[in-house]
Amino acid sequence: MIDQLVKEIKAKKAPIVVGLDPMLSYVPGQIQKKAFVEFGETLEGAAEAIWEFNKGIIDATYDLIPAVKPQIAMYEQFGVPGLAAYERTVSYCQSKGLVVVGDIKRGDIGSTSAAYAAGHMGRVKVGSREYTGFHEDFCTLNPYMGSDSINPFLKVCKEEKKGVFILVKTSNPSSGEFQDRLIDGRPLYEHVGEMVNEWGKDFVGECGYSYVGSVVGATYPEQGRILRAIMPKSFILVPGYGAQGGKGEDLVDFFDADGLGALVNSSRGIICAYQKEAYEKFGAENFGDASRQAVLDMLADINGALEKAK
Amino acid sequence: MIDQLVKEIKAKKAPIVVGLDPMLSYVPGQIQKKAFVEFGETLEGAAEAIWEFNKGIIDATYDLIPAVKPQIAMYEQFGVPGLAAYERTVSYCQSKGLVVVGDIKRGDIGSTSAAYAAGHMGRVKVGSREYTGFHEDFCTLNPYMGSDSINPFLKVCKEEKKGVFILVKTSNPSSGEFQDRLIDGRPLYEHVGEMVNEWGKDFVGECGYSYVGSVVGATYPEQGRILRAIMPKSFILVPGYGAQGGKGEDLVDFFDADGLGALVNSSRGIICAYQKEAYEKFGAENFGDASRQAVLDMLADINGALEKAK
Repeated sequence: MIDQLVKEIKAKKAPIVVGLDPMLSYVPGQIQKKAFVEFGETLEGAAEAIWEFNKGIIDATYDLIPAVKPQIAMYEQFGVPGLAAYERTVSYCQSKGLVVVGDIKRGDIGSTSAAYAAGHMGRVKVGSREYTGFHEDFCTLNPYMGSDSINPFLKVCKEEKKGVFILVKTSNPSSGEFQDRLIDGRPLYEHVGEMVNEWGKDFVGECGYSYVGSVVGATYPEQGRILRAIMPKSFILVPGYGAQGGKGEDLVDFFDADGLGALVNSSRGIICAYQKEAYEKFGAENFGDASRQAVLDMLADINGALEKAK
Repeated sequence: MIDQLVKEIKAKKAPIVVGLDPMLSYVPGQIQKKAFVEFGETLEGAAEAIWEFNKGIIDATYDLIPAVKPQIAMYEQFGVPGLAAYERTVSYCQSKGLVVVGDIKRGDIGSTSAAYAAGHMGRVKVGSREYTGFHEDFCTLNPYMGSDSINPFLKVCKEEKKGVFILVKTSNPSSGEFQDRLIDGRPLYEHVGEMVNEWGKDFVGECGYSYVGSVVGATYPEQGRILRAIMPKSFILVPGYGAQGGKGEDLVDFFDADGLGALVNSSRGIICAYQKEAYEKFGAENFGDASRQAVLDMLADINGALEKAK
């Protein structure tokens, strides 16, 4: 799957991923209204509204982007119907040829991590049959519990040709409370980065990158430079572009010299584009066109910065 | 909710929680068969089987125990139908007067953590109405991302009178890879413990304990003793009893002098009791009775150890 991701990034000249993180307040009024007429102001109605919103954005952008990253929390907040909309979104994106990164940040021990891995990227046995629950292509993972929590996912990745992105240095302001604390003179995130490199070394695809990727926030470019060197084979998923403050020029050091090795995420900057002054001319009816223009502008920003850095 | 938990622990003389972590292989054949006849060998069939299994265990033990801890991964592996069975289990346990600790180990930043908090312990707005998605009473959380990931949950806890248990030192063998690393001469888990104490200091209930609890593995009794002192107001959820190797006598130091302050979890030891030699006389038909006896034996072990330590 890392090979497919890299192939798509190259073909579309787009080292980016669109975060499908729908709050109900992001969904244009006409879509909410239609969903509530059909399902009432219920969890089912909310799930229908976010699904229709996602579909509009995917239909307007799928030819420009290699991947999407639905944030499962935004679906989980609507309970079981919300998670059905999550699964429907994953399926639809895959039918459009997109690589799906499930932003689930799971992490647990042994058999429990194996259950998460089976449900999200592998197969679960029911009697004589097998099923795939949420069938994402990649998942994000939390490393706090160590190898026991990661290995069950790596096993499934190997079997199913899938991949993971492990949290190393997150984009939020308080990420330093634990991640920046010094251990043997170096911050915790560097030690986690070394483990990511170690976990991934037997999982390198034909593209030269490992199935075991990492997450490093766009808001910490200096750390990105250091971690790029510590984890030479790891693809870095970079959240925090746009709404959280990261810009194209800050992100150059997350990439390798050939312009690969990083995947920059934007969520609100793309999916809420129609609500922003820069794109308000599109109007709520044409929210998909606004998102498309925001993707084009993001690509110009990032590819321009990479070009300039050559 | 911490007050209700403590009240129930005192009333039932039971500082324990039963982990409802059903694998399909734990479910007696007759229950699986019945579910598959009705729903086929499908995810819905699996979900029905684990729900019926849970119900049998709850019905046989609810009068002995204050709380249950369903591990959401075991439901999530069966996709959307599995999560419907999770919600049904939470509701049923609450109808029986049990406190429900959702073992979800979530953790994300700002608005995303707020979405998890709304979906699991708070309310989500849909138009003019409000809904509760999974409505657990407590949830477990992962601290790797720092305060940004915890605060949205604390806000919901305050509004809804609920609580959290934050991972400090987990029970698994590799928990030390990051958690034991020394920062300023002390392991990371002690620093996390200090933060738990800090996060919880404004959330102390009438019982004297905070809404902000912690997770410390039964497999690390020495660390339990130290952390008990670092987090004097924090209730400690203690996994790892039984199947993972922890025994009653090892757990005394997780408790305060009055026998409160800790909640010991057993999952497989209780729910799979009928599959163990010690309880096989009950037979698969009477798996609930086997679980009941295993609860009584666990209570005797832990209360005996606490009595002896007085």
